[in-house]
Amino acid sequence: MKLKVVSKILDANERIAQENRRIFNDAGVFVVNLMSSPGAGKTSLLERTIKELKHRVKVGVIEGDITGTKDAVRIKSLGVPVIQINTGGACHLDANMLNEVLKYIPLNKLDLLFIENVGNLVCPAEFNVGENMKVMILSLPEGDDKPLKYPLMFQESSVLIINKIDLKPFLDVDMERIKKSARSLNSSIKIFEVSCKTGSGMGEWADWLYSQCKPP
Amino acid sequence: MKLKVVSKILDANERIAQENRRIFNDAGVFVVNLMSSPGAGKTSLLERTIKELKHRVKVGVIEGDITGTKDAVRIKSLGVPVIQINTGGACHLDANMLNEVLKYIPLNKLDLLFIENVGNLVCPAEFNVGENMKVMILSLPEGDDKPLKYPLMFQESSVLIINKIDLKPFLDVDMERIKKSARSLNSSIKIFEVSCKTGSGMGEWADWLYSQCKPP
Repeated sequence: MKLKVVSKILDANERIAQENRRIFNDAGVFVVNLMSSPGAGKTSLLERTIKELKHRVKVGVIEGDITGTKDAVRIKSLGVPVIQINTGGACHLDANMLNEVLKYIPLNKLDLLFIENVGNLVCPAEFNVGENMKVMILSLPEGDDKPLKYPLMFQESSVLIINKIDLKPFLDVDMERIKKSARSLNSSIKIFEVSCKTGSGMGEWADWLYSQCKPP
Repeated sequence: MKLKVVSKILDANERIAQENRRIFNDAGVFVVNLMSSPGAGKTSLLERTIKELKHRVKVGVIEGDITGTKDAVRIKSLGVPVIQINTGGACHLDANMLNEVLKYIPLNKLDLLFIENVGNLVCPAEFNVGENMKVMILSLPEGDDKPLKYPLMFQESSVLIINKIDLKPFLDVDMERIKKSARSLNSSIKIFEVSCKTGSGMGEWADWLYSQCKPP
């Protein structure tokens, strides 16, 4: 009985995700769903990426958080349109939450929309929101065992960004093991190594993302 | 409708949590539910804590993971009884999952039972499993904004262990801000600063925990 209810919720989510996708396509906006554990660097990556791209493409952001507007305030200071969704306790964004706020974002004026999901390496991977691409961040201090322990996130994501590589000298973490196990779960996953603190690797990531979102 | 279903699930969970609690009380075992984001150091903290305490109290562990037995193998090598629960995708342990495995643990022979929850700073905080004490870990690299962004975990936990303090010189993280915001959410929260890598702070934490579980 419990499984049946969950299955119905997921079916309904998929239907609304497809509706969101049509809206994004009609507006000509490329949508990235950004996911990670708490504190892996989603907002810092967004700040760096927006600075790299904002003179090349028109960027907007939807911020998902359980509570508060701190990340949205950080992003807004960069001069791009931002909407905050507070889930009020829920551990992920779903398609319906997104659908309800799309009217507040000038989609027709955007080339690239980032959705920053709630910090959680598990549940957000289960819910499509209508995005073109799922991008996940793993921060190096989280450890090299994470792909095999949280496989769905690595299987669902097209891109793995390994962040905080500036801390590598101070950690017992095997970067090759992260990449090898991520690829064993998802052979086509694209991997970038970056430090949002030093800026290392950001140019390569931003250029690649620019090539994917194909602005007019 | 959806909320009503969730509410029934939580009611059922609470009933089974109380049943687990009675079983633990009857066996005279003190139970700690250990929670954190992925990679904050739950298993490393357990390893250090067991080494500190295993000559003073009889310790057992229930390992919760989505998939795999890696953490259970790590703990078993310390010579304490371990049971692995694989949630098969679920993002937290609930009271029923625990209830089903209690028969495989020699509770009557234990003084202290650790339950290592699934790595997730959100959902595990919503589900009592019958524990005597909820203990959470925040690792310093996750950042000083986490208490106000993930408040329920800090509100539900009796203890906050701040881990990876050896990385402090390399991070832009304000330790006092973490403590202040955690206490603003939960004025009675007990805070320890540790490094599972260097062992710093482990003695103080282990001694305090020993005083709480009151072995015969």
